[in-house]
Amino acid sequence: MQLVNADILAAAAARLDGRLVRTPLVESDRLSTDLGVRVLLKAENLQRTGSFKVRGMLNAMLARAAGGDLPAGVTTFSAGNAAAATAYAARLLGIPAVVCMPPGAVSAKVEAVRRYGGEIIFTEHLLADWEKVSAERGYLGLHPFDDTDVIAGQGTVGVEITTDHPDFDLLLVPVGGGGLISGVSAAVRAFPPERPARVVGVEPATANAMTHALSVGAPTPPPVRPSSIADGLAAPFAGEHTLAHVRAYVDDVVLVGEDDITAAWWALMDATKLLVEPSAAVGLAALRTGAVEVPAGGTVVLVLSGGNAGPAALAKLAPAAG
Amino acid sequence: MQLVNADILAAAAARLDGRLVRTPLVESDRLSTDLGVRVLLKAENLQRTGSFKVRGMLNAMLARAAGGDLPAGVTTFSAGNAAAATAYAARLLGIPAVVCMPPGAVSAKVEAVRRYGGEIIFTEHLLADWEKVSAERGYLGLHPFDDTDVIAGQGTVGVEITTDHPDFDLLLVPVGGGGLISGVSAAVRAFPPERPARVVGVEPATANAMTHALSVGAPTPPPVRPSSIADGLAAPFAGEHTLAHVRAYVDDVVLVGEDDITAAWWALMDATKLLVEPSAAVGLAALRTGAVEVPAGGTVVLVLSGGNAGPAALAKLAPAAG
Repeated sequence: MQLVNADILAAAAARLDGRLVRTPLVESDRLSTDLGVRVLLKAENLQRTGSFKVRGMLNAMLARAAGGDLPAGVTTFSAGNAAAATAYAARLLGIPAVVCMPPGAVSAKVEAVRRYGGEIIFTEHLLADWEKVSAERGYLGLHPFDDTDVIAGQGTVGVEITTDHPDFDLLLVPVGGGGLISGVSAAVRAFPPERPARVVGVEPATANAMTHALSVGAPTPPPVRPSSIADGLAAPFAGEHTLAHVRAYVDDVVLVGEDDITAAWWALMDATKLLVEPSAAVGLAALRTGAVEVPAGGTVVLVLSGGNAGPAALAKLAPAAG
Repeated sequence: MQLVNADILAAAAARLDGRLVRTPLVESDRLSTDLGVRVLLKAENLQRTGSFKVRGMLNAMLARAAGGDLPAGVTTFSAGNAAAATAYAARLLGIPAVVCMPPGAVSAKVEAVRRYGGEIIFTEHLLADWEKVSAERGYLGLHPFDDTDVIAGQGTVGVEITTDHPDFDLLLVPVGGGGLISGVSAAVRAFPPERPARVVGVEPATANAMTHALSVGAPTPPPVRPSSIADGLAAPFAGEHTLAHVRAYVDDVVLVGEDDITAAWWALMDATKLLVEPSAAVGLAALRTGAVEVPAGGTVVLVLSGGNAGPAALAKLAPAAG
């Protein structure tokens, strides 16, 4: 299996250059003071479509442009950010997008797909109908995370981090299907920071597809169907490519509980004044609970994976904050 | 009465330089597309303490350093952002702060004062007890908005806007007691943009202290006690200094309704992924409702005055967003 490497990452970064937002890596004084370590935040909530997902989708569309010709159209399946990202990237390139979404998808995510001109097929059979519509239309089918080009696109998050601040001890990355951490960890190995840095993934304890895949050695679905307030991380399974990258490049994957995610979510927004979705807060939850440690005086980078939190989700904060 | 001018503003900017955040002026593609004009946002939610208020308080403390000696301590009265700003600025200078707050002040605002080491006196008689404690302690009493030095400090927001983007048609500023718009409008007159620009204030219709003061020609309290979801703008009265600045420098003050503020608040956060308080959204509400107009193809600057929205406030978004 092809693992993403320096050449693949450099090609992805070149493809995306100027087409998307080069998001800032911002220091949080409040969080640094509270935690006793230097805290840097990669603000992918400020990315086009409100999440990192658009990097992978756009890179894959451009990388698959056979003989310079774009695909006739693209398809994917997703309940969330990958759906809007696919629609946005396709519109940027002037090609149609079809997204298979579950009937229960959050209305804000559905609206986002429509805003970018994407066609939606609502179905309980995401994988099967995704393959079917791809074949029928003759469109390029893009897996939302288990794809080398998608992983390479997400890896540009890591390329930017190591370029902007090549001096950190720990990089914490939210894990759903594993596309983001696969790309980011590959980037840290391909473009090493100035001192040894650990890359650690963070999963909700109730949405542990990657932890399960690591323990059984295959990307089979965990026995309990993933579900979390961090809805962006509730992938039903990891992927073959992402499992291989995590095994090769990631130091550890740790788990955090629902109440700790909610508390960290509010702490993160209150400290930074950035609107983020709960998935973006799992790294801070891991720090606050001691699930992962940073050397005293060290520097930690948190990837804020997205900002698509709707009013219904925000209403859940009131009881948690007391 | 001394109106703030270029020299006073330049002195304030020099005092604050390097002590506070030089907040970014960010363009919003989403809002620009939605409104058909170019939309720039001055992100004071990213300022220390989460609002512009700290500029005025810190400038006033430094400006009043008689013979180079800081005051022995400072006092103010406020239900909100000015309280935390005063505590923060005093701590930065190593002097004590006492803040008179109403008993019903939002807990997040109370906690913020305590976080920065401020002493709180809860009282129904804000003005009287503020004057009393200032005299008893021998501390410098700072009015939260009706003070030339405070206005000059808030005016550095305007200095930064005209420096960063000296080419806009309309500047929309939230109005409570009027300190922010007084300083910002003075800056636009002192350092004029490249083409004629209007400065327009926006008040909640239910918290219209400045509109009332303009209509009666004096800063008397309006007949109905101000109250709004934009709690930061519910000043009980305007000030003599702020009324004079608004008369001299501001083109218009317009009103927006509560539902329009709530809808604009969510639209603003969704589009920008910045956490802001409802007060910060009144400018967008005025644009969306047509209370103020921008020439087609023009550029509008919105001052996002603060980001201190707590979970209880955010929970109010759920019904509004449907």
